[in-house]
Amino acid sequence: MFKKILIANRGEIAVRIIRACREMGIKTVAVFSDIDKEALHVQMADEAVCIGPARAKDSYLNMQNIISAAILTGSEAIHPGFGFLSENSKFAKLCEECNITFIGPSAEAIELMGDKAKAREVMIKNNIPVVPGSDGKVDSLEEAVDIANKIGFPIMIKAAAGGGGRGIRIVRDIDELFKVFDMAKNEAKNAFGDDSMYIEKFIENPKHIEFQILADSYGNVLHLGERDCSMQRKNQKIIEEAPSVILDENLRKKMGKVAIDVAKAVNYKNAGTVEFLVDKNGSFYFIEMNTRIQVEHPVTEMITGIDLIKEQIRIAAGEKLEYSQEDIKIIGHAIECRINAEDVENGFRPSPGKIDFLHFPGGLGVRIDSCIYQGYTIPSSYDSMIAKLIVYAKDRKEAIERMKRALEEFVIEGIKTNIDLHYELLNQKEFIEGTYDTGFLTRFLHR
Amino acid sequence: MFKKILIANRGEIAVRIIRACREMGIKTVAVFSDIDKEALHVQMADEAVCIGPARAKDSYLNMQNIISAAILTGSEAIHPGFGFLSENSKFAKLCEECNITFIGPSAEAIELMGDKAKAREVMIKNNIPVVPGSDGKVDSLEEAVDIANKIGFPIMIKAAAGGGGRGIRIVRDIDELFKVFDMAKNEAKNAFGDDSMYIEKFIENPKHIEFQILADSYGNVLHLGERDCSMQRKNQKIIEEAPSVILDENLRKKMGKVAIDVAKAVNYKNAGTVEFLVDKNGSFYFIEMNTRIQVEHPVTEMITGIDLIKEQIRIAAGEKLEYSQEDIKIIGHAIECRINAEDVENGFRPSPGKIDFLHFPGGLGVRIDSCIYQGYTIPSSYDSMIAKLIVYAKDRKEAIERMKRALEEFVIEGIKTNIDLHYELLNQKEFIEGTYDTGFLTRFLHR
Repeated sequence: MFKKILIANRGEIAVRIIRACREMGIKTVAVFSDIDKEALHVQMADEAVCIGPARAKDSYLNMQNIISAAILTGSEAIHPGFGFLSENSKFAKLCEECNITFIGPSAEAIELMGDKAKAREVMIKNNIPVVPGSDGKVDSLEEAVDIANKIGFPIMIKAAAGGGGRGIRIVRDIDELFKVFDMAKNEAKNAFGDDSMYIEKFIENPKHIEFQILADSYGNVLHLGERDCSMQRKNQKIIEEAPSVILDENLRKKMGKVAIDVAKAVNYKNAGTVEFLVDKNGSFYFIEMNTRIQVEHPVTEMITGIDLIKEQIRIAAGEKLEYSQEDIKIIGHAIECRINAEDVENGFRPSPGKIDFLHFPGGLGVRIDSCIYQGYTIPSSYDSMIAKLIVYAKDRKEAIERMKRALEEFVIEGIKTNIDLHYELLNQKEFIEGTYDTGFLTRFLHR
Repeated sequence: MFKKILIANRGEIAVRIIRACREMGIKTVAVFSDIDKEALHVQMADEAVCIGPARAKDSYLNMQNIISAAILTGSEAIHPGFGFLSENSKFAKLCEECNITFIGPSAEAIELMGDKAKAREVMIKNNIPVVPGSDGKVDSLEEAVDIANKIGFPIMIKAAAGGGGRGIRIVRDIDELFKVFDMAKNEAKNAFGDDSMYIEKFIENPKHIEFQILADSYGNVLHLGERDCSMQRKNQKIIEEAPSVILDENLRKKMGKVAIDVAKAVNYKNAGTVEFLVDKNGSFYFIEMNTRIQVEHPVTEMITGIDLIKEQIRIAAGEKLEYSQEDIKIIGHAIECRINAEDVENGFRPSPGKIDFLHFPGGLGVRIDSCIYQGYTIPSSYDSMIAKLIVYAKDRKEAIERMKRALEEFVIEGIKTNIDLHYELLNQKEFIEGTYDTGFLTRFLHR
């Protein structure tokens, strides 16, 4: 086992990783930017190294400085957390070259999954269900009509050079397709300098369901059940839960098997997440694989009793998985609310600043993963997530009641947060019934 | 179900009960003494009523004021917590007379179990193993020798009028018995004005093992496994864990059955705890039953997934237990450290005062049941326990590591606490092996 690990991250995930290391008897090295010298992860780690100015590019994304810090402190491994360099295959490769274990999958797996078109191709080859669509570019209206007839409306026509939600049109019938195809091509040309288009079936109001995967270096791959992450705003998840009400044991088994197949198709190692869209009929489609630990990993930990960060470290150290698929038992229900320092009523604008008073909820079934303390000043330079409030209970009903009372207990003064929004969401019929889809939050906010 | 419950207590247990009520949709009424008006339970409850001056006798033990507060606020039930009036049969009776449900067993069961001699008698009648000894008074040395030969050395000769550890002599062989019997009688005469003596087998370095019981009004009685509470100083438990390393499945079943028999023998209702001493050979002896929720109830909640306070409320409201014995599954391991405001190095003197800085541990498997917040002033009038730190993990080894890292994270400034002592105890060989007995902590402190 490693004697010392450097954590190439900040915030609550850095704290989370330090906790796991400490329980394993592994020394930790925190890295921090100028502005983060008072941060909790810096105080908690055994050692801490400043890696540059506040701007992420100069510090948390500065591969050379991070590698230097690892070498300087004699760290044998680097845990990248999520965000920053966690899905950067160059960084994974650089670690390898420097004889430092990157706690995550191989650079090849990261690279492949990072290229969405390539990943789609590999999945199709491996009989993984993907969102139906064109094989590559669609040049003419004629071609577009053919494909649309094959996969059925509604469809999305997407600019190949677009991204992040830009360059996408939803088309609901053949008349509309006739009307907009050339227009969309022209727009793409103007916006991106490239009029290549491709077509995908538009999955209407889907559930975002993802499976947690663990894979060791000996070909053992497990899934730890699903997470329902359909409560999203602009593709940012804000509430996650496990298990999902829309999966029965049969569908869970089926999707779990596919998730394992996805991991096996790319020779995946370490913890990963296979994301699916599930439509109203229970049909599911692979969308992507996240080749790192996820923000929402705690809900899986609560219902399985497995410490995912420890498993990541063990796998990276070359250990075999201690469990087989049959050992994984899903018990109870867990919900996570992401607590963000933001001003919900002013367009979710970040609300950094000093925490004048802080009181965390507690008691049975309440878990806090956080990086804040009373007197701490949240910098404006980074993501606005400051805490994850996770509850665990014997069933979903109790978990909702527990989350509500925990949110009531949570006091943060000095900054604005989304605590009240969470409380309101938990009281919505769609949430209570569990039927909310990825469009729910947007619809809710525009009511 | 009740619409409103008054909580006749303070501190963390009042907070604990408010949390359960809130999750059940039940309104809560806090009561408080003059000095407690800034207390957390007062801030958290829906209503709060001042019931008198700081002295417990005038407030938290003032039955009339508490009953008045209940009537005034329209509370349908009273939860007594632990300590204070929780094992006062008169109070239970008074509630009944005022048509307020006392959340606990009947006044008769409280009264019977409160009378240790009577309880012993009833247990013997019901074939419950008790610590072997004389049936009542032992008048002569001859009689003493007979009994000692029957039950085996070592024995305790106890002054019937003694108590609280006074008037007890441990006798290890027959010669010593000859030497001290008359002396002990004389001492008892001088100390208590009564030379009546009785004899009990002295269980050397026993384990204190207790079973959690739940019993409804329909004759259903369950046990929820054991807690090992052998880490004690002057009969005060400071660390508790579940399950105990000294119980195998067989002994657990056997003791569990006896615990259920104890409850049935007194027609017990609600949550209760049956306490045993277990000797080095695995023989166990009933010592007493606590007719209330215990400080250490969280460790049982963690390993069974059952919210004991909710069960208490449901049972008191006349509901049937939802579980059968087969449904109770013990999974993982839990440890509780009682965090006291005390100066360990100065004879464990209470250390009340203002909390200048507070930072709770968090993360996976960490639960805090507490009544403190940054800026709060701990009064000197009450018990020094200010928080319970509970950890849960997949096995005992991980639970110990988790507790150690949680203790490391715990920061309380402004007062003295026993956090460092806990950390030291968790590092002791006897704790790590799980073999520590009720004498361990005393021996440790006198090293």
